[in-house]
Amino acid sequence: MADRTLRPSPISPTVDFSAEGVQHGFLRLPYSRDDSAWGSVMIPVTVVKNGEGPTALLTGGNHGDEYEGPIALFDLARSLRAEDVSGRVIIVPAMNYPAFLAGTRTSPIDKGNMNRSFPGAPDGTVTPKIADYFQRTLLPLADIVLDFHSGGKTLDFLPFCAAHILPDKVQEAKAFELVGAFGAPWSMKMLEIDAVGMYDTAAEEMGKVFITTELGGGGTATARSAGIAKRGVANVLKAAGILKGAVEASDTTWLDMPDGNCFSFAEDGGLIEPLHDLGDEVRAGAVVARIHPVGRTGVAPLEVKAKMDGILAARHFPGLVKPGDCVSVLAAIVD
Amino acid sequence: MADRTLRPSPISPTVDFSAEGVQHGFLRLPYSRDDSAWGSVMIPVTVVKNGEGPTALLTGGNHGDEYEGPIALFDLARSLRAEDVSGRVIIVPAMNYPAFLAGTRTSPIDKGNMNRSFPGAPDGTVTPKIADYFQRTLLPLADIVLDFHSGGKTLDFLPFCAAHILPDKVQEAKAFELVGAFGAPWSMKMLEIDAVGMYDTAAEEMGKVFITTELGGGGTATARSAGIAKRGVANVLKAAGILKGAVEASDTTWLDMPDGNCFSFAEDGGLIEPLHDLGDEVRAGAVVARIHPVGRTGVAPLEVKAKMDGILAARHFPGLVKPGDCVSVLAAIVD
Amino acid sequence: MADRTLRPSPISPTVDFSAEGVQHGFLRLPYSRDDSAWGSVMIPVTVVKNGEGPTALLTGGNHGDEYEGPIALFDLARSLRAEDVSGRVIIVPAMNYPAFLAGTRTSPIDKGNMNRSFPGAPDGTVTPKIADYFQRTLLPLADIVLDFHSGGKTLDFLPFCAAHILPDKVQEAKAFELVGAFGAPWSMKMLEIDAVGMYDTAAEEMGKVFITTELGGGGTATARSAGIAKRGVANVLKAAGILKGAVEASDTTWLDMPDGNCFSFAEDGGLIEPLHDLGDEVRAGAVVARIHPVGRTGVAPLEVKAKMDGILAARHFPGLVKPGDCVSVLAAIVD
Amino acid sequence: MADRTLRPSPISPTVDFSAEGVQHGFLRLPYSRDDSAWGSVMIPVTVVKNGEGPTALLTGGNHGDEYEGPIALFDLARSLRAEDVSGRVIIVPAMNYPAFLAGTRTSPIDKGNMNRSFPGAPDGTVTPKIADYFQRTLLPLADIVLDFHSGGKTLDFLPFCAAHILPDKVQEAKAFELVGAFGAPWSMKMLEIDAVGMYDTAAEEMGKVFITTELGGGGTATARSAGIAKRGVANVLKAAGILKGAVEASDTTWLDMPDGNCFSFAEDGGLIEPLHDLGDEVRAGAVVARIHPVGRTGVAPLEVKAKMDGILAARHFPGLVKPGDCVSVLAAIVD
Amino acid sequence: MADRTLRPSPISPTVDFSAEGVQHGFLRLPYSRDDSAWGSVMIPVTVVKNGEGPTALLTGGNHGDEYEGPIALFDLARSLRAEDVSGRVIIVPAMNYPAFLAGTRTSPIDKGNMNRSFPGAPDGTVTPKIADYFQRTLLPLADIVLDFHSGGKTLDFLPFCAAHILPDKVQEAKAFELVGAFGAPWSMKMLEIDAVGMYDTAAEEMGKVFITTELGGGGTATARSAGIAKRGVANVLKAAGILKGAVEASDTTWLDMPDGNCFSFAEDGGLIEPLHDLGDEVRAGAVVARIHPVGRTGVAPLEVKAKMDGILAARHFPGLVKPGDCVSVLAAIVD
Amino acid sequence: MADRTLRPSPISPTVDFSAEGVQHGFLRLPYSRDDSAWGSVMIPVTVVKNGEGPTALLTGGNHGDEYEGPIALFDLARSLRAEDVSGRVIIVPAMNYPAFLAGTRTSPIDKGNMNRSFPGAPDGTVTPKIADYFQRTLLPLADIVLDFHSGGKTLDFLPFCAAHILPDKVQEAKAFELVGAFGAPWSMKMLEIDAVGMYDTAAEEMGKVFITTELGGGGTATARSAGIAKRGVANVLKAAGILKGAVEASDTTWLDMPDGNCFSFAEDGGLIEPLHDLGDEVRAGAVVARIHPVGRTGVAPLEVKAKMDGILAARHFPGLVKPGDCVSVLAAIVD
Repeated sequence: MADRTLRPSPISPTVDFSAEGVQHGFLRLPYSRDDSAWGSVMIPVTVVKNGEGPTALLTGGNHGDEYEGPIALFDLARSLRAEDVSGRVIIVPAMNYPAFLAGTRTSPIDKGNMNRSFPGAPDGTVTPKIADYFQRTLLPLADIVLDFHSGGKTLDFLPFCAAHILPDKVQEAKAFELVGAFGAPWSMKMLEIDAVGMYDTAAEEMGKVFITTELGGGGTATARSAGIAKRGVANVLKAAGILKGAVEASDTTWLDMPDGNCFSFAEDGGLIEPLHDLGDEVRAGAVVARIHPVGRTGVAPLEVKAKMDGILAARHFPGLVKPGDCVSVLAAIVD
Repeated sequence: MADRTLRPSPISPTVDFSAEGVQHGFLRLPYSRDDSAWGSVMIPVTVVKNGEGPTALLTGGNHGDEYEGPIALFDLARSLRAEDVSGRVIIVPAMNYPAFLAGTRTSPIDKGNMNRSFPGAPDGTVTPKIADYFQRTLLPLADIVLDFHSGGKTLDFLPFCAAHILPDKVQEAKAFELVGAFGAPWSMKMLEIDAVGMYDTAAEEMGKVFITTELGGGGTATARSAGIAKRGVANVLKAAGILKGAVEASDTTWLDMPDGNCFSFAEDGGLIEPLHDLGDEVRAGAVVARIHPVGRTGVAPLEVKAKMDGILAARHFPGLVKPGDCVSVLAAIVD
Repeated sequence: MADRTLRPSPISPTVDFSAEGVQHGFLRLPYSRDDSAWGSVMIPVTVVKNGEGPTALLTGGNHGDEYEGPIALFDLARSLRAEDVSGRVIIVPAMNYPAFLAGTRTSPIDKGNMNRSFPGAPDGTVTPKIADYFQRTLLPLADIVLDFHSGGKTLDFLPFCAAHILPDKVQEAKAFELVGAFGAPWSMKMLEIDAVGMYDTAAEEMGKVFITTELGGGGTATARSAGIAKRGVANVLKAAGILKGAVEASDTTWLDMPDGNCFSFAEDGGLIEPLHDLGDEVRAGAVVARIHPVGRTGVAPLEVKAKMDGILAARHFPGLVKPGDCVSVLAAIVD
Repeated sequence: MADRTLRPSPISPTVDFSAEGVQHGFLRLPYSRDDSAWGSVMIPVTVVKNGEGPTALLTGGNHGDEYEGPIALFDLARSLRAEDVSGRVIIVPAMNYPAFLAGTRTSPIDKGNMNRSFPGAPDGTVTPKIADYFQRTLLPLADIVLDFHSGGKTLDFLPFCAAHILPDKVQEAKAFELVGAFGAPWSMKMLEIDAVGMYDTAAEEMGKVFITTELGGGGTATARSAGIAKRGVANVLKAAGILKGAVEASDTTWLDMPDGNCFSFAEDGGLIEPLHDLGDEVRAGAVVARIHPVGRTGVAPLEVKAKMDGILAARHFPGLVKPGDCVSVLAAIVD
Repeated sequence: MADRTLRPSPISPTVDFSAEGVQHGFLRLPYSRDDSAWGSVMIPVTVVKNGEGPTALLTGGNHGDEYEGPIALFDLARSLRAEDVSGRVIIVPAMNYPAFLAGTRTSPIDKGNMNRSFPGAPDGTVTPKIADYFQRTLLPLADIVLDFHSGGKTLDFLPFCAAHILPDKVQEAKAFELVGAFGAPWSMKMLEIDAVGMYDTAAEEMGKVFITTELGGGGTATARSAGIAKRGVANVLKAAGILKGAVEASDTTWLDMPDGNCFSFAEDGGLIEPLHDLGDEVRAGAVVARIHPVGRTGVAPLEVKAKMDGILAARHFPGLVKPGDCVSVLAAIVD
Repeated sequence: MADRTLRPSPISPTVDFSAEGVQHGFLRLPYSRDDSAWGSVMIPVTVVKNGEGPTALLTGGNHGDEYEGPIALFDLARSLRAEDVSGRVIIVPAMNYPAFLAGTRTSPIDKGNMNRSFPGAPDGTVTPKIADYFQRTLLPLADIVLDFHSGGKTLDFLPFCAAHILPDKVQEAKAFELVGAFGAPWSMKMLEIDAVGMYDTAAEEMGKVFITTELGGGGTATARSAGIAKRGVANVLKAAGILKGAVEASDTTWLDMPDGNCFSFAEDGGLIEPLHDLGDEVRAGAVVARIHPVGRTGVAPLEVKAKMDGILAARHFPGLVKPGDCVSVLAAIVD
């Protein structure tokens, strides 16, 4: 196997993944730099293990400015008791920890986008070193993988749980079953066009049951969106038989993103005036948003139009928009 | 008068405030710097004048990361026709224009917070120079003043229009009348404790009828919040007799902020988990939010509690919170 | 072919290179980053096609602080009519577009020097992604390639058009013919010592007729130098039979740079005092410039001397010089 | 006198301004900061004194990115012999020394524009502290003052020496006499509209004979422009009777800038295409430059037009232009 | 009194300085900025009060990169029991708290040097606001004041406690008595030449008994230097009758700095080679350090010589030195 | 050999390594960048050669903030005479020269840690280009290699000379012999666990006799530590038969670092209070340092404990500590 020829990971955990009980510790990654010659990145990790059963690997902070996942997972890590578990739960509330501390999508150390860094490298910069540790150490331990995302500081999403259309339909079915159990108000069937470098792909290629979310965005969380995350992760662990108790049922609407027409991009920058909000039904040709030039008053705004009928599922968040930014994403309701 | 001894403002307008019709132009402020020895700040301005009648001075972008005002005012500036006006409308969609272009609360040039820079100074840095121009040139031209605010990138507000409790009850009543005409979902009676340096105070001390807003926040606008702003400014101009047509009526709930107990501050930093959303009723002693330490898992969060009964009117926006940040603001419903 | 194993380019054009007529659009390169999760770099492109004939690929802004090329090409893109063309003209006025917007030699995103980034990589950072698109998509479409350069903010050049001494003398002759047609005041025969990573090399290795320029520098353009560029590109298109009309003849002096002795480097930093200007004849041993230490007055300056007889063809531009900077380049007149 | 109540200057010179002979030393200004708790700014200074006679105060680097003055003055400081002098020459080649070392118009320490910092303050930041030292210590020692300027990195000027129209016509005449002696190709009679904070004004208000220059720009010097500076300063010292020898005569053309119509400003940013060069005669209404929008190809450029007949005396230098930048300055030839 | 006309301080304490017992809290200073519209600086403070007796005001972190004071005071604040105290102890371990958090001498917010910011201003930036709070609120509460300093990141000192030569000899004697009680290895009698803006001066002008220290430097603390600080503060509180128990006696050597000859400054920058260490006896004319130019090998270093006989009491710390840096300070032993 | 396929190094030396006598020059590395299109890094180098004999390669500044090596080597380069040498001495006082000029551990250009950059690459960024030049050009010339290190700005070490435990015991013995000759107060036998990318490893794998040092730290040097370095390098050259004269004998204590228990890391950040100083004997379980939380007063510090008995050989230097920083290193005395 190609991985065998790689150097060992420089990351050393302070927890024992095979030990019973609750452990709180760190993934310690040596990181020599100007302000600390012999410094380290200390990524918090919790392991809860009790007897036999499947292993769930739960991650937030894959992107550092997305908060529902870290809230649900710091909360779960503190409150989960070993006696409530059958199997093992590995919790990394902030996967790209330097990015999480900085409140940025990518790592302030190397600008690494964690979700484009897989399979990583043990001799790369900090982000690929972390990815490599998940690739070669943590993912192999897992049966099911839940990776929390939200829109971050620059996008806003309808709250949904999602899994990918996969060639292995058994694997796919298990994932959509967990998506349903999660119980977000919306659920998404995603067809990934460009899957290179994603954590999702890394997990799926190992045959893991992988689900993910988009639960809001804008670099904040609300009581409502954090609640969806907390209930969702508990439901998933219950559905997987790891946590005791019944899944808390809730209605969801299934969506998909059929093709590239769901995206609209800005060709000019300026002040964005949204004409529709998330969840609105939009018809093809409708103006989704207007972009006002900011250099002068008295100039007509650029209109950004929908290219298909659909539900407004995601939108550009900041008040100013730059050329090339994604303005809106439409999704179709799956009957 | 003290102002007489000040130097003239270095700002020169490219519009004539006394001319009839629609003019789009700039307030040009010379600004010599490393990347432009003879450069200028060019603040867009529109003047629409038609015959006799009061003057409304309309401003957005007092803080550069608040968007409902600029959206409503760039839109109004482009669409307002002279024949629809009786009197004069002066529109400055982005008052702290360098901050607006940067998408930041304060000016990137001098870190100037426009709303703490009045009365300004003609020989100060860029922000006080702009303030001085409003203080000595634009405010004296106005009868009514509407200054748009929102929460910006770090706060989120219930959408409300507001005016101050004032010693001159006639002036106060005129302001609250316009607040009612604005027609936001919520309306606020504000008692300003520390009014030093504010644009509001500058206008009120000249006897102007001054109203302001908070219409959301987080550094974005929605179709809903932008719509409130657009209807609001039209309603105010109609109520003032400047714009033709009837005020578009809508329900509003009146609030006030009785004392300092409405504010809760964070004493520790961390990951904030909101337990209530804007508009929720909260009882004194209830936990409004929890702050999870981010250095380790397994540690109890700090609880931030309400100090009075009220409606959650504003909240900290970013997912991370720093020591000293305002976490929540409660308001009381005025019967 | 090795390229076949590469991933497809992430760049998608909004123009159809095979369509007839004039199209203005973008090369859209997805670029996810902290301030735009789903953002893009939007590189302006114009295609003008009319019937049969050769294809010219015209580029400026290979280095972002060189202006004669972008001026000539934004002007040409706007004014070129399909009916004046026989064949196809592809115009990218600012090849390293992020660098061009920043006014810097290299890209502010990844510090990429476009002219050392070939053949590029579809999974690299932004600069090699752009290079890869030229390597695998645009260069194969072209018959002749004109890439504009000037000295940029830190060098100043005599205005010349140039091509390389090549092993294929037919290819070389075609290139020098176009150099002559360009009609700059000076023309250069260049022997490239270190050609690794250059756009020039990429084009030449595909057998394209490649010419380039140095038309001034210092991070500015003059009416004179912009005029040379505008006339030059029209002349080249005419000489290639793509544009109607006769080449506008003008005198040129042919130069070459025989060996490494044409360069003089600074060993100390300081305030540079030039003793010769561009175009001056300089004798070996003459002092080209003096470098005054700036820490004290009363100290003798360092003398930088010419190592050969020649014409001063290029010089260090900024008033201060750093150790290791190239101070001067001499060229020999070719009889 | 108001100055009497000011604190003493914190600057201590390492030279004795009353001593005979040549001294090279420093104006030492204590400057405590993060990277040096007990650090200082060390401004090089040379004093050459020999017997009786007037005192000339010679300065360059008032703006840190203007090079003809520092070249001429570092050169003069090193080569001037006491025996050639009758009186005293005080040379500060780089007045805003931190800006000069950084190669920037203003000081990197406090963004201070030296020529807007007079009369300065002994308890201000670094730039006003230096201004105060000139105001209270050096200017009082001087009879004639020559302050070198050029266009810096963002402007380019015809090479001229200049003095102000003054209320005291005797003082004015002495200044214009020295301007003539300087012998630049062009000479300018300046009517200062906004003289607040200028070194010029500080000197003139003390009754000193003050002359200044603009000798090129763009953040560079040429052999030609440095030669003008070196000849000019020698000529001025000769004309003042301080240096032995006859003024080296040369032709000059006298210009003035009659009113604000000489300036044209950019209202949009973009890529600037100059249509005229320095020294060209331009007619009112002629297009001086065009500004190409850089966001797209195929868009018409903005035309910047001359508002009077005149000689193009100064122009915007960088290839990109920002809204509000001065694009061109026209001057009228004085018969 | 002039202070009466000032605005009230914006700082609000969360402790009650008149309450009995131990309180840990904050001085909360509202600080609105881009990353927190309604943020605050939260300066930790401890008050321990028990019955009648004098008040000691203890401060560290006046400069943010000096550590012996904060170590001793965080330790004391945590361990001091009310029952051990007679009177009151007010502890602010990090006076310039933003600087302390950043590990820098001055504040990262406004570059404020706390010890040059007195008497401060309630409407200034953050540093003068803090100074004003000490000036008008905390200093008036105190009888004795101990302000800890060390050399910080750029200087290193012999460990000494110090007080000023004062016009009021009774006040001076009380201070030197406390210096003796502190019991550092060295004790210094300081004659302040430039006392403007210092906290020391503010306290002394109110008649307070003020002592200070320099206890090492380089931006670190050792077990030895921290121990000196911890014993010293306990000794001072005991000597003042506030803390129970006897002063822990220790030998000290008294020093003074007679005049400006004790300082040597670097005129050139480079790599510093110290030839003497702290505590060494040095004779006038001896080479204290050499400065090697770093641009080339083979060049003679600059020698920095002692200007008087004395003990090396302080030295430049970093391995590189800049022109104008203080290289060494000599002190004379007081018999 | 793999290296044969690499491009030639872009570095060109201005000295001839095979010439007799003393030469001072540069390793010139072309480095094109925004502020110098045709700039270079100029690394000072000295070669002293006299007849036959071994070659010593002496380097400092492998990390840019470590000063004993550069002091000893700039001094040696200036003072070494050809007639005192038998063989050749190549001196590079500042190997990572950009880092040395910046006073930082890693290069400001590419953040390259020189000692993790071997074998380097001729087409990498600046740091691997320098490493490649040592790998392919300088190391092959050498018989013995001495590379100076100290703790840098963030660590402090007991002064020791060291060599590695090697598989080739003859090579190891020669190295320890030179360590003994160096004569530092302490000598270390190092077992390298992670040797990837080190200069040490590169030299040792070529069979060179390689020794290194740690001679203090904190980003400074003292007269004592600089003296150890100067005597040490002379002793090593004498022991190798390159320099005339006898080794200056001195006592040393031999240490080793037996396993990972010698290191203690911080799990929380804060203000560090050391309880032991370098050279102290510490017992397993003893508290080496305490870390005070800095957000509040009144909170217990975290204790960092020794995991083995030993001598405190290295410690964290700055007053503040970050999570993951190495707090202390213990060493065992070798009998």
